[in-house]
Amino acid sequence: MSENIIASKRAAAYQAIDDYLTTSCKVIGIGSGSTVVHCVDRIAQKAKSGELDTTNMTFVPTGFQSKQLIVDAGLDLKDVDQFSPYDIDIVFDGADEIDSDINCIKGGGACLLQEKLVGKCSKRWIVVADHSKHSETLGENWRQGVPIEVVPQSVKKITHQLLEVGAEKVTLRQGGKLKAGPIVTDNGNVILDTDFGRIPSSHVTNLTTTVKSLCGVVEVGLFDYAHAAYIGRADGSFSVYERKKSTTK
Amino acid sequence: MSENIIASKRAAAYQAIDDYLTTSCKVIGIGSGSTVVHCVDRIAQKAKSGELDTTNMTFVPTGFQSKQLIVDAGLDLKDVDQFSPYDIDIVFDGADEIDSDINCIKGGGACLLQEKLVGKCSKRWIVVADHSKHSETLGENWRQGVPIEVVPQSVKKITHQLLEVGAEKVTLRQGGKLKAGPIVTDNGNVILDTDFGRIPSSHVTNLTTTVKSLCGVVEVGLFDYAHAAYIGRADGSFSVYERKKSTTK
Amino acid sequence: MSENIIASKRAAAYQAIDDYLTTSCKVIGIGSGSTVVHCVDRIAQKAKSGELDTTNMTFVPTGFQSKQLIVDAGLDLKDVDQFSPYDIDIVFDGADEIDSDINCIKGGGACLLQEKLVGKCSKRWIVVADHSKHSETLGENWRQGVPIEVVPQSVKKITHQLLEVGAEKVTLRQGGKLKAGPIVTDNGNVILDTDFGRIPSSHVTNLTTTVKSLCGVVEVGLFDYAHAAYIGRADGSFSVYERKKSTTK
Amino acid sequence: MSENIIASKRAAAYQAIDDYLTTSCKVIGIGSGSTVVHCVDRIAQKAKSGELDTTNMTFVPTGFQSKQLIVDAGLDLKDVDQFSPYDIDIVFDGADEIDSDINCIKGGGACLLQEKLVGKCSKRWIVVADHSKHSETLGENWRQGVPIEVVPQSVKKITHQLLEVGAEKVTLRQGGKLKAGPIVTDNGNVILDTDFGRIPSSHVTNLTTTVKSLCGVVEVGLFDYAHAAYIGRADGSFSVYERKKSTTK
Repeated sequence: MSENIIASKRAAAYQAIDDYLTTSCKVIGIGSGSTVVHCVDRIAQKAKSGELDTTNMTFVPTGFQSKQLIVDAGLDLKDVDQFSPYDIDIVFDGADEIDSDINCIKGGGACLLQEKLVGKCSKRWIVVADHSKHSETLGENWRQGVPIEVVPQSVKKITHQLLEVGAEKVTLRQGGKLKAGPIVTDNGNVILDTDFGRIPSSHVTNLTTTVKSLCGVVEVGLFDYAHAAYIGRADGSFSVYERKKSTTK
Repeated sequence: MSENIIASKRAAAYQAIDDYLTTSCKVIGIGSGSTVVHCVDRIAQKAKSGELDTTNMTFVPTGFQSKQLIVDAGLDLKDVDQFSPYDIDIVFDGADEIDSDINCIKGGGACLLQEKLVGKCSKRWIVVADHSKHSETLGENWRQGVPIEVVPQSVKKITHQLLEVGAEKVTLRQGGKLKAGPIVTDNGNVILDTDFGRIPSSHVTNLTTTVKSLCGVVEVGLFDYAHAAYIGRADGSFSVYERKKSTTK
Repeated sequence: MSENIIASKRAAAYQAIDDYLTTSCKVIGIGSGSTVVHCVDRIAQKAKSGELDTTNMTFVPTGFQSKQLIVDAGLDLKDVDQFSPYDIDIVFDGADEIDSDINCIKGGGACLLQEKLVGKCSKRWIVVADHSKHSETLGENWRQGVPIEVVPQSVKKITHQLLEVGAEKVTLRQGGKLKAGPIVTDNGNVILDTDFGRIPSSHVTNLTTTVKSLCGVVEVGLFDYAHAAYIGRADGSFSVYERKKSTTK
Repeated sequence: MSENIIASKRAAAYQAIDDYLTTSCKVIGIGSGSTVVHCVDRIAQKAKSGELDTTNMTFVPTGFQSKQLIVDAGLDLKDVDQFSPYDIDIVFDGADEIDSDINCIKGGGACLLQEKLVGKCSKRWIVVADHSKHSETLGENWRQGVPIEVVPQSVKKITHQLLEVGAEKVTLRQGGKLKAGPIVTDNGNVILDTDFGRIPSSHVTNLTTTVKSLCGVVEVGLFDYAHAAYIGRADGSFSVYERKKSTTK
């Protein structure tokens, strides 16, 4: 990864923290991805310099990686099971793909369930990433398909139903050399990587609802509620997109 | 339980088998409940007498109890994971409550997920029960609430959201002396027994969809797709209700 | 329960805390059972009065109940997964039966795995209970059998093997009206309640090792490493037993 | 892979079937690995030609791959949960490494628990592999370590204890790009790949017992009960080793 990209991811992540992590935030969600690492760095940096008082702040991870980030930064950790909708003031998370209306695909790491739980308990959800994750339409750059978490007994049934509602290809994610048979999620389910081709922004919410309603589906890796996206550019700069408007810094 | 009740449950179950288990059925779902036991008895009886050829039939259980019933009757067993929608010709299942439009509450035994999976893979779903399960409106006799299976981390969030969508009371099902803390389902989830008061028949489908769409919900114990209900009466007789019409025998 | 019993349980629990919870303890395990509730009460009481500084203490629960006790008492909570052997200074736990050498049966609540994990990470393990749990030999008062946690696929195999190594009766713990089929533990396993008749104190360690070595066994509900037992008497007094000596107060 | 290797694996597998799968075998375990595929091919071939009557035979898989092999070959499938020790007449399985006394390391695919369950329910366990898996001492060729399945909460504790009993390095198996955080097994546990250096044949059984006895360990990827090993050579031939004697064909 070029120096420029790293610089731009860092700049985007730092700005996201500076813009949204105010002292009124008491509970903060920390997601996954390489750009989120810079978010936590920024928090630790500001805490150390005295610019930000984190003593009354609690941090909620979306999975294994972010739990480690929080512990390593010496921040207070609490599990998502302690929270209800709107209890988490702000979440900083990554994504596998972000469209022009800042809808996202997530779940490449098979943690979409906990990521969405944290997001759904938050007032505002901010996504940070580099420009390789940014495209006009979901499905354009991220060719692996939308990750869908399903109970193991329903794989055949759901595969059949996904093809009926427009999927071009459904693949049970396999563990390869690490794990014979399918990858198992932290909740004991499996992942169907589901290629819907390009998903027009206007279809994202409906498709999510349709798929979630199928018996056996636990969660769908489509996220339609980002408040803002901070995206690092190849030239070291970054852009900020808010729901239905954008600015470049 | 009185002799009459047992006689009426047996009569209802036998008639359900005689009406719906034809030789063209190749895959048959077997559900749970005390009346379903009589269904399997009838199948075994007809197989033994030569009235029904079960050699090419496969039976799909909805849980531990029905798996045992199938094995004990010497019938061919297959798991639900082998099937897609419409692959199962007919299902015979019980219910915790059945309303006047034969919508059902199920999940008193915490097996609603597999029960619904089997049901959703079937062409026709037949419910058999005694009259104590029959009421005008769901929530009338079954006061324990609609069982909702949720991932453990989401209990607080979902409880909050269920109260918002009209639940009067939400109770995490506890294991009591058998299991400290909550009952765990066969898929590693927990059960929220959710009292919605009386649920008008016209609301059942919408309520199911609304609740299933919440992040963290795995399945909802409302079943709106029964083809027919066979209900044993206190006097030894039974009634048959088909979707939108009823007959008494 | 009589006033005397409650008074004696409280007295035993208070004394256990006073004797073993010194200011040098930094990490404290909190187990399950009705007497442990009095332990946490005592801690909260001494913290409030300023007699005990709990600000640098961390508390580790063995399950759902003790997690709630810790949170409700406003104490700092950490999961057992953060600790290695000897990292936990002291544990206060209950038991289903305690023999004259202070060996214990635990697991009536199906939480033996986490209870033993916490115990095995501790320097000293203190058991508190009322006299109804106290007997000469394990198996004398607790007739339900030793709880053994096994992976679900191994039930038939392990049952067979337990009968071979001397069990009189092996019962798969069922969920009854709460859960059709077997009770599922928090780790997704099941419980075989195994009646070995009376287990001489000298056999406890060997029996534990023999059973744990069977493929499919996850943990055995025999605990042979208590440092001391505080047991409330029917008359309001209590007795203290240390490994290989006892005193009455 | 060279033609010779494939030929030698096939020859070894075919001979294993011809030697051990007699008509008196009613229940047959089918394991994992590329050589086992040839075993199933041989069974299907002999069944088709009429040389072997498989109509009264039942096949028990050790995991996802072998379940598929059995179903695809049209053979009768039963789960391991139906069987007790000695109920399975013969098992054909692969291995990650086989030493000169035909002790094995297994679990590269994270399925050691079910593989050992099937093996422990059998009268005779036959291992088939190519010569790259064969070494003088375990740990010589297979450098990834012995896979040990542990409950997730015990990772830190067990890692500490494994280093105490002689492990040189303990690695929590990570899911990489497929799964953020650790690989989860089909029983909801995680894998510690544990490098013990070279494990003398005389230590294998003791090491297995020591590690299995640790609280939190579910199963150990050391197998000390092979009846015979069929090993394909680089030149197209194969060797047969029986416990404490060997022959080359």
